[in-house]
Amino acid sequence: MDTIKTITIIGAGCVGSFMARELYKKGYKINEIVSRREETAQLLAEEVHGRAVKDEYDQISKDSDLYIVSVKDEVIMEVRKKLNVKNKIVVHTSGSMPAEVFKKSSTNYGVLYPLQTIIRERSYEIEKIPFFITASNKNVLYALNVFARSFTQHVMEITDEKRAKLHLAAVFASNFTNYLLKISKEIMDEEMLNFDLLKPLVDESMNKAFQVGPLGSQTGPAKRGDCNIIDKHISLLGKDEYKKLYSLLSDMIHQEYKNMPKKHSH
Amino acid sequence: MDTIKTITIIGAGCVGSFMARELYKKGYKINEIVSRREETAQLLAEEVHGRAVKDEYDQISKDSDLYIVSVKDEVIMEVRKKLNVKNKIVVHTSGSMPAEVFKKSSTNYGVLYPLQTIIRERSYEIEKIPFFITASNKNVLYALNVFARSFTQHVMEITDEKRAKLHLAAVFASNFTNYLLKISKEIMDEEMLNFDLLKPLVDESMNKAFQVGPLGSQTGPAKRGDCNIIDKHISLLGKDEYKKLYSLLSDMIHQEYKNMPKKHSH
Repeated sequence: MDTIKTITIIGAGCVGSFMARELYKKGYKINEIVSRREETAQLLAEEVHGRAVKDEYDQISKDSDLYIVSVKDEVIMEVRKKLNVKNKIVVHTSGSMPAEVFKKSSTNYGVLYPLQTIIRERSYEIEKIPFFITASNKNVLYALNVFARSFTQHVMEITDEKRAKLHLAAVFASNFTNYLLKISKEIMDEEMLNFDLLKPLVDESMNKAFQVGPLGSQTGPAKRGDCNIIDKHISLLGKDEYKKLYSLLSDMIHQEYKNMPKKHSH
Repeated sequence: MDTIKTITIIGAGCVGSFMARELYKKGYKINEIVSRREETAQLLAEEVHGRAVKDEYDQISKDSDLYIVSVKDEVIMEVRKKLNVKNKIVVHTSGSMPAEVFKKSSTNYGVLYPLQTIIRERSYEIEKIPFFITASNKNVLYALNVFARSFTQHVMEITDEKRAKLHLAAVFASNFTNYLLKISKEIMDEEMLNFDLLKPLVDESMNKAFQVGPLGSQTGPAKRGDCNIIDKHISLLGKDEYKKLYSLLSDMIHQEYKNMPKKHSH
């Protein structure tokens, strides 16, 4: 199997655009950008000096070394039907899809999953993003490993099953925590308190969770079983769903800690 | 009202111990440490060169300039009955209790609420912790303000109502996010994946929430309305409560974003 030098990117969403730009910067030749939305494909293709292809799979060149499919999981199921690249390597970037969704598209397939929450408004150091690879055979594994190590310091081989659990853990650690901050900011906004006041607290909470472990670093009224505060907080929340979420989380935390031996307290 | 120089600390839990040590380091005279648990009081008192008092309120000296009560909210209700310090300043450190719980203990009372999650196993730079003060009158406000500014860069006056909402926002941003990390770590542990692999993701998620705002920085299957992944994730979760929490959060996120205009996607 040849070393990966030329790349087709299918999907010009956050991850596809990010990968196209970063790989271009690292010296890879971006052959094509494929997107259902012509303008998006065109703009990104110009930026990385590639060709734009509007979702017509018969027009995709057969001579890229690697095809990176970065589309929603439901769209992967469409792409797999239309994409045929014979023995070239095709990968997707999804946490949850098995590698073999592309087994009819090529004899050489795999996954290249970046563990990061990527949005357009931010810049990222690709070197610091852990990439998890899965491959249909040893040659693909070797090629993807060499490829990934050319742009990031953190590459790990992983099975489909473990990657799915990793993605699940990431949803709790990133997507759901972000949503809790959304609620938190709404409460601050209502009181005209600057959301940034919470930054030192959030930073410390996260650092302590990784340094001490989140089980040992839990604090707050639910852990203490302080029903007065819990009831007061629920009454202060406007939306019924927020009340429900507060109750559920507090119950879970309380259950977790009520039988644990206490350390010091007054 | 005299400048605050001498202090009695009531409660030797995480916050009380932290305040005693930090104020001692800043040159304040810690008269007494009061705790129901004799040994705890004794150890902390020795450390800050004060006297230990075992929860006998008639033995507490009347001549400290400031009495800091750092006990669970339910214990505050006991302390208030027993504590009488005439016109000396008495404050608690609770986010949720009104200032006036101590109005029978002294003519001068207030609150000194540190916005940080404090556990014994960690060290903190008190200078970077925001302190929120509430006071029964202008003299107390002035005294507490001068006092707090002697050890932290961030002091804000706040009403009882706003402080309660701030505390509520902090529970979402700190206690509940920590609990989500606890679940996340369990999932990683089950797969023998190192929890630290998630650190760059969590760091970026939090930074982006503060820089872009959490509403704009949401990502993930729930935001995309990716039901296949959501169903798969729920099936991967072991405990019923985790399934329930995953569903609730995903529903809430999906409701939030389903009617928002989309930016780019494939």
